[in-house]
Amino acid sequence: MVHADSSNFASNLSKSEAYNQVLAQAASLFEGQPNWVCNTANTASLLWHALHALPSPSKQTNWAGFYVLDPKVPNQLILGPFHGKVACQTCAFGRGVCGTAAKTATTQLVPDVEAYPGHIACDSESRSEIVVPIVKSGKVVGVIDLDCAVENGFDAEDQQHLEALAELLAHACDW
Amino acid sequence: MVHADSSNFASNLSKSEAYNQVLAQAASLFEGQPNWVCNTANTASLLWHALHALPSPSKQTNWAGFYVLDPKVPNQLILGPFHGKVACQTCAFGRGVCGTAAKTATTQLVPDVEAYPGHIACDSESRSEIVVPIVKSGKVVGVIDLDCAVENGFDAEDQQHLEALAELLAHACDW
Repeated sequence: MVHADSSNFASNLSKSEAYNQVLAQAASLFEGQPNWVCNTANTASLLWHALHALPSPSKQTNWAGFYVLDPKVPNQLILGPFHGKVACQTCAFGRGVCGTAAKTATTQLVPDVEAYPGHIACDSESRSEIVVPIVKSGKVVGVIDLDCAVENGFDAEDQQHLEALAELLAHACDW
Repeated sequence: MVHADSSNFASNLSKSEAYNQVLAQAASLFEGQPNWVCNTANTASLLWHALHALPSPSKQTNWAGFYVLDPKVPNQLILGPFHGKVACQTCAFGRGVCGTAAKTATTQLVPDVEAYPGHIACDSESRSEIVVPIVKSGKVVGVIDLDCAVENGFDAEDQQHLEALAELLAHACDW
């Protein structure tokens, strides 16, 4: 199987099945390869293609990617690999959805971004968001960030699987 | 203007105009931000959206991204940020189109990948490719890699603009 086939998701999968495929493919790709840039780049592709193979609202995901610790500025996230439109480059801990997830080390599930205090709009088309912290040895090293073009784009099922993916990434990569 | 608007390209642009917009937006994004992961992530988005706003064959671009020097293995490229399906993780200097561009520090414009000796198929759907080395202080630090799902996807005009983009990236980023 060539690598690109990992991004092919059948159109009749349930959300849980699609995420399980993402997790299985990610675990297989990370085997023997700890480079975090390489691994988050392929994971962004897996998430994008999995969510776009699902019915609405998942298929209306308009951004899927990563922010990581800025190596140069303390308590700041910086943009990592992603799929979607050009994104904000940095985000201070505590600011917006990503910054809050990073500061508190807890998942932020946001059904309506316009109702979120201090939301930072990288894209005015985004209506809902989920941000899951990646925690290694008790320290946040980055976040998984998904945006959706409709409200209520993500739910507890997304959260459960994305938290499993964050744990896999935390342990498999050389953060 | 929010960041995502940088990825919006009018549908009536010529290829040259689209690339000029990519270059202008990239230069603006890199101002004061040298982080190479952040900058190549946004550049992959710019290239993907620019090429998909153009007529065929440009809009049939099926992969747009970067390979960079592997920090752990000499004479090896490793996957960087991209848009498209999951990709091969590493590529030795001299192997395939990317490895040849890296080893020779010259652009590889490949109208038909199946006629290219030693082509590595990350995606069986790819039919043509262009790989442009990013050279800083005489050393290749990475490559821009574009694949297209039809033959003759790229031409001398792509090459000219992508080489300008590679030069911008070489100087603007902390490789």
